[in-house]
Amino acid sequence: MTQESLTLYYAPGSCAQAVHIALEEANARYEAKRLDFASQQQRSPEYLAINPKGRVPALVTQEGVLTEAPALLAYIAQRYADAKLAPTDAFGFARMQEFNNYLASTVHVNHAHRPRAVRWADEPEAQAAMQRKVPANMTDNFTYIEKQYLNGPWVLGDQYSVCDPYLFTVAGWLKSDGVDIAQFPKVNDHFKRMSEREAVKRALA
Amino acid sequence: MTQESLTLYYAPGSCAQAVHIALEEANARYEAKRLDFASQQQRSPEYLAINPKGRVPALVTQEGVLTEAPALLAYIAQRYADAKLAPTDAFGFARMQEFNNYLASTVHVNHAHRPRAVRWADEPEAQAAMQRKVPANMTDNFTYIEKQYLNGPWVLGDQYSVCDPYLFTVAGWLKSDGVDIAQFPKVNDHFKRMSEREAVKRALA
Repeated sequence: MTQESLTLYYAPGSCAQAVHIALEEANARYEAKRLDFASQQQRSPEYLAINPKGRVPALVTQEGVLTEAPALLAYIAQRYADAKLAPTDAFGFARMQEFNNYLASTVHVNHAHRPRAVRWADEPEAQAAMQRKVPANMTDNFTYIEKQYLNGPWVLGDQYSVCDPYLFTVAGWLKSDGVDIAQFPKVNDHFKRMSEREAVKRALA
Repeated sequence: MTQESLTLYYAPGSCAQAVHIALEEANARYEAKRLDFASQQQRSPEYLAINPKGRVPALVTQEGVLTEAPALLAYIAQRYADAKLAPTDAFGFARMQEFNNYLASTVHVNHAHRPRAVRWADEPEAQAAMQRKVPANMTDNFTYIEKQYLNGPWVLGDQYSVCDPYLFTVAGWLKSDGVDIAQFPKVNDHFKRMSEREAVKRALA
């Protein structure tokens, strides 16, 4: 493994937080650069030259820029293999990926219909209708996670993995979505357990 | 590699088609089981026992059931490594994953707002508003793919990978979304090139 440094572009509270925590867990050499979404810094020409999607996370490596949270989480797990942040057998790795893809393609998307409803309809009434449905969709998704995915103490069971910072990050959105995390005792315990990890404290600092 | 057989649950035209093609490209031993979405077979107790999400694809392996298209595509590439369906270095693998995650979390989601608008709003007017925005969003996404991702002749350049059946499958939705694929010359060429592959013909048969 090369010891070159990485650069993570992130915004506080975004899904980039999961990548930020994973880099801390991996004890990676990296620099974290914060984008100010309030001033639309993610749409600046400077940032669009790095990530033309105008979103976070983006991870600058010596070989090029990588985006998409599940891809970055798997990359960090593979690159810093000594940190054991993912199963290495094909099935176990796929289970890790399945969970992260569920968060990205279903749960994150359902959440996004509150702050980012404008992506999917132009009319304010339609945006409001989408926003009204967010709590029910997030409740459904976290009921599913609670029952089907969260083996405990970590998502994949005894092995801590890159699933854990991602779940922690997405669960952190429940409050703003109007959903009480206490409805999901295993998710709630997981959230508290994550909050106590040193790597999490460092990433959030 | 074990020679045990896999079972793929799919519905024609769904994103499971990408997984179906990948299994053919890998020369895998598998059985394909078609679900009839018209009769809501994906919601039957028998299928929910296999995949509680009630969606496709689901891949039954000897070790358990796997879901989520990008996870399955990476799994097939890793399991049938001889077929060389993904780069094996961490960065190259991450680029493959980045593309597939973009399709899953952004492009598939944007498409789904036409046939599955009911997921995100209860009011018919809001659903219609979402559906009206689908052509513009799909056009934006394919403009991005055309400019940023499709190196040619395959998505990742000279190496055919599991990105290719996924792009082929999602590009196949453009017509029903009211978007002319001919606007995107590289995507259009890719679509034709894919249509001529024997593995694609077998999967679509």
